[in-house]
Amino acid sequence: MSNLVNIREVGLRDGLQLIKTNLSTELKLSWINKQVSAGFTEMEVTSFVPPKLLPQFSDATDIIIQSNKIKELKPTALVLNIKGAIRAIEAGAKKITFVLSASEKHNQSNVNCATDQSLSMFDEIIEISKDIKIEVAAAIATSFGCSIQGSVPEMRVLELAKEMAKMGASEINLADTVGYANPNQVKSLFSELKNQIGCTPMAAHFHDTRGMGLANVVAALQEGVRRFDATMAGLGGCPFAPGASGNIATEDCAYLLESLGFDTSVDFDKLLELRSYLSNLLPHEKLEGRLGFAGKAINFKNKLL
Amino acid sequence: MSNLVNIREVGLRDGLQLIKTNLSTELKLSWINKQVSAGFTEMEVTSFVPPKLLPQFSDATDIIIQSNKIKELKPTALVLNIKGAIRAIEAGAKKITFVLSASEKHNQSNVNCATDQSLSMFDEIIEISKDIKIEVAAAIATSFGCSIQGSVPEMRVLELAKEMAKMGASEINLADTVGYANPNQVKSLFSELKNQIGCTPMAAHFHDTRGMGLANVVAALQEGVRRFDATMAGLGGCPFAPGASGNIATEDCAYLLESLGFDTSVDFDKLLELRSYLSNLLPHEKLEGRLGFAGKAINFKNKLL
Repeated sequence: MSNLVNIREVGLRDGLQLIKTNLSTELKLSWINKQVSAGFTEMEVTSFVPPKLLPQFSDATDIIIQSNKIKELKPTALVLNIKGAIRAIEAGAKKITFVLSASEKHNQSNVNCATDQSLSMFDEIIEISKDIKIEVAAAIATSFGCSIQGSVPEMRVLELAKEMAKMGASEINLADTVGYANPNQVKSLFSELKNQIGCTPMAAHFHDTRGMGLANVVAALQEGVRRFDATMAGLGGCPFAPGASGNIATEDCAYLLESLGFDTSVDFDKLLELRSYLSNLLPHEKLEGRLGFAGKAINFKNKLL
Repeated sequence: MSNLVNIREVGLRDGLQLIKTNLSTELKLSWINKQVSAGFTEMEVTSFVPPKLLPQFSDATDIIIQSNKIKELKPTALVLNIKGAIRAIEAGAKKITFVLSASEKHNQSNVNCATDQSLSMFDEIIEISKDIKIEVAAAIATSFGCSIQGSVPEMRVLELAKEMAKMGASEINLADTVGYANPNQVKSLFSELKNQIGCTPMAAHFHDTRGMGLANVVAALQEGVRRFDATMAGLGGCPFAPGASGNIATEDCAYLLESLGFDTSVDFDKLLELRSYLSNLLPHEKLEGRLGFAGKAINFKNKLL
């Protein structure tokens, strides 16, 4: 099994979605450039959602156009419906990630329709994008539980995954949107997922809401997952719990992976510089991530250096 | 393999060792009582070190005498030398944990002698305590690396463990004193440890300095470790990195274990109440631990309730 792991920075989307500070397009691009120079080749740079609801993404088109100019980078964008997908395609996105929720209640509250309606939209987006050079990935939110509904049946997640893989999803990303996953659950679900989606690549999107984020990464690695979403300094938080932590921190995730012998291509000095830079950009946010405080171990070696 | 896991609170020792606030004996006992009522049966309540160096432990004898009155509790104390052990025995401690470092440089800086000299002291303490009803556990600091020396040879850790088990240690506790361990290393070292120490119980003491604390717990569980040290709200910090996190947080560790199906006997409502209580007692400390911010998942069930 491959030793290469792709960490996709989603801080410009999942991170900025919940925080108060509104970064200018220029500052976002400066972040993107710094992270690319730290070795990142894929970043979810924006979200094509209604600018009225989330004004921090009103520059989505511009962000895609500008990031497309960075040759080492595959910029990606999140979409929740057909309108968003069309906007992303028109902007020139090379990869979009369509999100639906395995929890009916979460899908209703997030996109105001049933999960099966979201599924039909995904099929339509695949149709629309057939003649365009674009990857269409699928993410299943609340795959490990939902803070509105509670438990989410594993069978439902697998059914949705299988369906979207069949429709043509370029990857299936299981998301622990509210931080309910534990390592046993992660092993069980990804182990079954492999059987359902065959060669379609798997990805994982973990939050660290209850401290198990990196333990879940280890469990997913053991099941063959090699694509992980993360945010710098764990930006993101949780809408339902003030002060709670959000996504797993990019820098800690990369450090874990390198410590385990995986190859992330990350330059840690540049990554920690970026973290300091972000702490200045976002002075009112609580920054998570342990490595930023502790620094590397004195005997730490990563493959790149 | 047993489903029961013993989490030993070491916040009153490892937690208070590094922080500025000096708790009164009365407040320490109030903490101890609250934690016992949350289901804890073993707590490292103090340290028999020179009061001149660490005045926060000058009430060590009193703490042992008072905690011995709590019938559900086995209070334990840390000792670093013979003098400390004698003081602990005289106070009536039922279990002491002797600590030496696998890293020579760390042992020098911590107790001002070679590791082999510490080993001889351990032998002498075992002799002294032979006719007394007391458990003498051994902890090996810097088992996974040292911030002064760098890497620590696995063979050295195993050699010390074997030696101390043979001398009569009631358990061997491998400590990741500076947060250098990763899950692969944990699996490897505990897997070998089993072969070296036979029936002597294994224990683990992890810090979360670089975010891998709970992932290391999972790895140790897989190798049969069922005794874990932790501190409420991750109290403790790191002397070499301001702002860095210390021990794994008791509440997060317990939550992980229950989520994985282990039985910790912890009452989470009482534990989270204790956390709030401690945040009032220690207003100037940075409290870690995710569960305190996020709360339990709505579908979380623990065995006790």
